[in-house]
Amino acid sequence: MAVQKHDLDFLQANLSFWKELDNNTQQSLQQSVVRKHFLKGESMHGGAENCSGLFLIHRGQVRTYIVSEGGREITLYRLFDRDVCIFSASCMMKNIAFDVYVEVEKDTDAFLIPTPVIDKLSKESLPVQKFINNIMAMRFSEVIWIMEQALFTSFDRRLAAFLLEMYDIDGSVLAITHEKIANHLGTAREVVSRMLKYFQNIGLVKLNRGTIQIVDIKRLEELAW
Amino acid sequence: MAVQKHDLDFLQANLSFWKELDNNTQQSLQQSVVRKHFLKGESMHGGAENCSGLFLIHRGQVRTYIVSEGGREITLYRLFDRDVCIFSASCMMKNIAFDVYVEVEKDTDAFLIPTPVIDKLSKESLPVQKFINNIMAMRFSEVIWIMEQALFTSFDRRLAAFLLEMYDIDGSVLAITHEKIANHLGTAREVVSRMLKYFQNIGLVKLNRGTIQIVDIKRLEELAW
Repeated sequence: MAVQKHDLDFLQANLSFWKELDNNTQQSLQQSVVRKHFLKGESMHGGAENCSGLFLIHRGQVRTYIVSEGGREITLYRLFDRDVCIFSASCMMKNIAFDVYVEVEKDTDAFLIPTPVIDKLSKESLPVQKFINNIMAMRFSEVIWIMEQALFTSFDRRLAAFLLEMYDIDGSVLAITHEKIANHLGTAREVVSRMLKYFQNIGLVKLNRGTIQIVDIKRLEELAW
Repeated sequence: MAVQKHDLDFLQANLSFWKELDNNTQQSLQQSVVRKHFLKGESMHGGAENCSGLFLIHRGQVRTYIVSEGGREITLYRLFDRDVCIFSASCMMKNIAFDVYVEVEKDTDAFLIPTPVIDKLSKESLPVQKFINNIMAMRFSEVIWIMEQALFTSFDRRLAAFLLEMYDIDGSVLAITHEKIANHLGTAREVVSRMLKYFQNIGLVKLNRGTIQIVDIKRLEELAW
């Protein structure tokens, strides 16, 4: 679906380079932006085999992750309203040697600047190159933080922090499997189940069939920090 | 020390943006580049408190690492001849939210483009911005690889891979402490000592006072891959 006039404000407000382009480039960019709708559970981007372009999330929630050779996942970061995903255009960045996957966690509306368009722009426009550079630095920082968490923080703190993150998004009843949590945190399902049972024993959560209920938010926060 | 005429070829060959700058900018850049000499063990860059600029290694070896709140280190990557260090200029990148440390592992000669100079250049020149973007993407990929190693690979494989990496650099007798290896791999000294003793028991290495001798390179390679 093409971009409507009322979407233009949103694009200009969130793509800081837009207003620095000349009029012709702005117009041709506007014509090439595509509106996309994704359903929860769909893949927005799947590793090296597809390379749709730069996404700007209008409304929704997606999760980016990498997958090990053994098939284990680790979440790099989540993107929400007004966030930009550059790794869905990573084929245009010759030095990116890893595959990022993007999974839709909540129904999502997004604007897509197709790869050929953003690639050409980034080669010709300093503001676009700066914009991409800033986003990459931000994602780099997030990944370093995740790595520090994973390497330096004990697992009980990481799990508590993860439950709090989910609580902020979904409220006190989390419909998520132990397997999924294990993927998020780059560990095995058994490790998650064992720690969750321990959390239940000490009264932090209540485990039900298919859900985890957060019971004591205060002590969970103490554990996480 | 200022840059000599015979250094110019080296700078032009390794800073791909150089020849794309106009003559005046090239000349003023040449005048602002500084030659630096670092001794083994010195700090080339130390977190947020200093921000010297972009380094291009002429000859030598440095190690970049991050430090956790608890004081533990993890090595991100090493830089050798002709490599570029951008995080020593990270204060000019507003979205970099982590502190990188750079330690000199072998006596090192390097060229420095001071922060004000590279900052100004990157704001005005598309080739410079692209150059920085490419280096950042390369470092990002290296860090993702390190993270995959740390999270998804069992410790015996990681230690074997580390010993092989050191073997390529230093030969079969490694003068490195267990504490240092632990810092490199983001774990505790005891974990390293235990695994090294196991490696000795199965005939892969020989532990001496202050050194680790690599005995069976073939089996170490099998273990690492």
